[in-house]
Amino acid sequence: MENYTMLTDFYQLTMMQGYFKSGLGQRRAIFDMFYRENPSGNGFAIMAGLDQLMNYIENLRFTEEDLDYLRGEDIFSEDFLQYLRNFRFTGDIRAIPEGSVVFPNEPLCVVTAPIIEAQLVETTLLNILNHQCLIATKAARVCHAAGPDSDMVLEFGARRAQGPDAAIYGARAAVIGGCSATSNVLAGRMFGIPVKGTHAHSWVMSFDTELEAFAAYAAAFPNRCTLLVDTYDTLGSGVPNAIRIFNDMRAAGKPMGYYGIRLDSGDFAYLSKESRKMLDDAGHHDAKITASCDLDETLIQSLKLQGAKIDNWGVGTSLITSKDCPAFGGVYKLVAVETGGAMAPKIKLSENPEKVTVPGEKKIYRIYDAKNHKIKADLITLADETINEAEKLVLFDPKAPWKKMRLAPGEYYAKQLLTPIFKDGKRVYTSPSVMEIRDHSTRDQATLWEEHRRLTNPHIMPVDLSQNLYDLWQRMIYEARNGH
Amino acid sequence: MENYTMLTDFYQLTMMQGYFKSGLGQRRAIFDMFYRENPSGNGFAIMAGLDQLMNYIENLRFTEEDLDYLRGEDIFSEDFLQYLRNFRFTGDIRAIPEGSVVFPNEPLCVVTAPIIEAQLVETTLLNILNHQCLIATKAARVCHAAGPDSDMVLEFGARRAQGPDAAIYGARAAVIGGCSATSNVLAGRMFGIPVKGTHAHSWVMSFDTELEAFAAYAAAFPNRCTLLVDTYDTLGSGVPNAIRIFNDMRAAGKPMGYYGIRLDSGDFAYLSKESRKMLDDAGHHDAKITASCDLDETLIQSLKLQGAKIDNWGVGTSLITSKDCPAFGGVYKLVAVETGGAMAPKIKLSENPEKVTVPGEKKIYRIYDAKNHKIKADLITLADETINEAEKLVLFDPKAPWKKMRLAPGEYYAKQLLTPIFKDGKRVYTSPSVMEIRDHSTRDQATLWEEHRRLTNPHIMPVDLSQNLYDLWQRMIYEARNGH
Repeated sequence: MENYTMLTDFYQLTMMQGYFKSGLGQRRAIFDMFYRENPSGNGFAIMAGLDQLMNYIENLRFTEEDLDYLRGEDIFSEDFLQYLRNFRFTGDIRAIPEGSVVFPNEPLCVVTAPIIEAQLVETTLLNILNHQCLIATKAARVCHAAGPDSDMVLEFGARRAQGPDAAIYGARAAVIGGCSATSNVLAGRMFGIPVKGTHAHSWVMSFDTELEAFAAYAAAFPNRCTLLVDTYDTLGSGVPNAIRIFNDMRAAGKPMGYYGIRLDSGDFAYLSKESRKMLDDAGHHDAKITASCDLDETLIQSLKLQGAKIDNWGVGTSLITSKDCPAFGGVYKLVAVETGGAMAPKIKLSENPEKVTVPGEKKIYRIYDAKNHKIKADLITLADETINEAEKLVLFDPKAPWKKMRLAPGEYYAKQLLTPIFKDGKRVYTSPSVMEIRDHSTRDQATLWEEHRRLTNPHIMPVDLSQNLYDLWQRMIYEARNGH
Repeated sequence: MENYTMLTDFYQLTMMQGYFKSGLGQRRAIFDMFYRENPSGNGFAIMAGLDQLMNYIENLRFTEEDLDYLRGEDIFSEDFLQYLRNFRFTGDIRAIPEGSVVFPNEPLCVVTAPIIEAQLVETTLLNILNHQCLIATKAARVCHAAGPDSDMVLEFGARRAQGPDAAIYGARAAVIGGCSATSNVLAGRMFGIPVKGTHAHSWVMSFDTELEAFAAYAAAFPNRCTLLVDTYDTLGSGVPNAIRIFNDMRAAGKPMGYYGIRLDSGDFAYLSKESRKMLDDAGHHDAKITASCDLDETLIQSLKLQGAKIDNWGVGTSLITSKDCPAFGGVYKLVAVETGGAMAPKIKLSENPEKVTVPGEKKIYRIYDAKNHKIKADLITLADETINEAEKLVLFDPKAPWKKMRLAPGEYYAKQLLTPIFKDGKRVYTSPSVMEIRDHSTRDQATLWEEHRRLTNPHIMPVDLSQNLYDLWQRMIYEARNGH
């Protein structure tokens, strides 16, 4: 990954110079990265992007060209530019591991560092996590719609992604969320993801006849032959020609491997059922049917309800852009600043009530049902609080504190979610491989009740505050409102 | 720009091996890149991304690591991998210059090359052009809504962009479409775009009081002081505190440069009018009001209708993701293949009628009204046709060929849109600077009638086919349907 030190909002640099000039830059501060609403109306999100975030943090340094450019803006002083010349990140970062199920209003990533350093990294930290969390979450939805009786969900979106990185890291995130493979060769090489694909309409068109095109493709790829059947007339020529080729391959007596047809236009419910019948009638029961073309989780669900005979789903634009909801909305908010040697919690009020931040340094406990190991709630506490599983636990909704859930010892257990990834500027965490992260995500998604996983109007997972954190929050809202 | 040779769909490589094995790889082919529908219901799109496309094409080569990876897929033969080792692009590319106004169903970019080469570049060519055309078009909409009486539209979306490239090249495209500046420092440095920004809520929160925070900011940036006034209470504390600082600055007698306030939450119509009144009452008539937070062209138009007093519009998520329409939908279709030494036009039928391609090698003429220099229509012709302005011109709609427009000599003039950018694999075109492209786009957008520029239900620009091209198309549809 490149050096993205300059991929930051200009105001981060003006604020940094402001802190530098005021002598306040080295005060330690804590910023929480969190989001307020699940994308696409989902019941959860999937954490993704940490590995790229770690690379970004490790590569932070200003080049001489960067400094020359900033000097040319005529707003930065030489002593500040000299400070930037030696800039390194020296802080701590904790984060929820990639692939994990996460919920609104809990910190996915916490940066504790001199405020001048913590400020610089906001923009790219958000950019990376917002993008990958978004696509991983969309992939979880699409794969949930395809269900366990589908062979594969394939990420096919490179050509419609918002630039090269969106294609590459979008493919990574899609696989973390649940896709089996991608068409993106570079993503396959970079992350060890399986790559898939056969041929396009142009292949068929470049031959005199469809049958010649199919025969040439089968000759080149006898063990991996999926034929695209809709260039001219799906049921009139495409499927019959494909069957002629498959018959020839079968007659030749060699193993045919994973083979079948791809539909890329028309009415998939009708065409897939008719094609399945034609393939079955010809004895090609093991031929697979892949569908691609403007698919999303809603259309996949509808096709399954209609009994469409589709084994593989190639999903492009809707997945790689999260078309119905193309931004994740993660934010990065100051929650504490060093004051007189101690960390003082901070709060931001807002004209929009849902934007009032929760102050202080935090931990997150995930509370599981001891019987079935499903998630009951997430509980955010102050950093110095500990859950004792030998005691009863009382949870309440911070928006409706009279609604309480009481858990007796033995009924629950708790796991901390935030893991150190940087300590004193040094990386202290190694990412699993993308396919390992995918496995973790599959297991983590299985700790959700089905009611949280459904695609429309899912049950809302409680994300609660401990009594101490709630009391601090309410006190600070009151003080801030009356003190300014 | 990096080497993105491997940023391609896997099926491009399987098709390439198929062509290679069939001995058909060196046949020249022509692919048209075009799109079918303007994004966001707009009346046109803005061409963007050529400079990155040219870099991509120039850097095309497979590394040994790439070849090792492909060998590991167990599907590619050694002679094909040897071919890839020496792969270079040797073809021709024509394209419409960046910043130009473009319309559906006309080729924005035409690749003429050995089919094995033309096939490889499809994915990244589409990725780059789709992304930048999308964002440039969205920016044109947002800037049109802001109108000429606004000071600036600022691109503020880096943190919500779909990955680093989406932030960087999205900022570039946004400026091409009409934005005045970006908050993205890296984009500013790379493309010579003005960068803007002041401070965040965290700045205010890190001080004991809002007034201290404002004073420290003003001390650090006396000539470029925009204060964010909504951290605690916009009209109750933010604006009064900002006015106290501006009063002090005025009393100090130094030039205050470009100064003012920024609103980032709440009811912008109400707050901007009240803030304007308070600033004016204090004699700060030259203080500017910037608004940011979930703005898009619809909200900007509504705020202007309500008489909001906003000088600058900071637009983030909606612009950088083109939120209501996050994909451009450009496609890359085979339109001719060398057959017996000549180029034979090719057609793709489809179950979806609007996906039937127009065959053959083409030119595009833009037809202007000689009186007011506005665009009357675009006319696509065969490559060997020429418009003679001394003769009358008859245009007709290919979907309704009985609707004809007749232009007498002197009533119109014609300009060709496609320009050579690669010839025999060599780049033959130099991109203007981004700010020059922006100027070209401003002039080009001014050749549209206002009816084509309005944001909702714009008038549709005719994109017509010459009689010869139309006849070829109809004949090939008939032959294809009856020949397979």
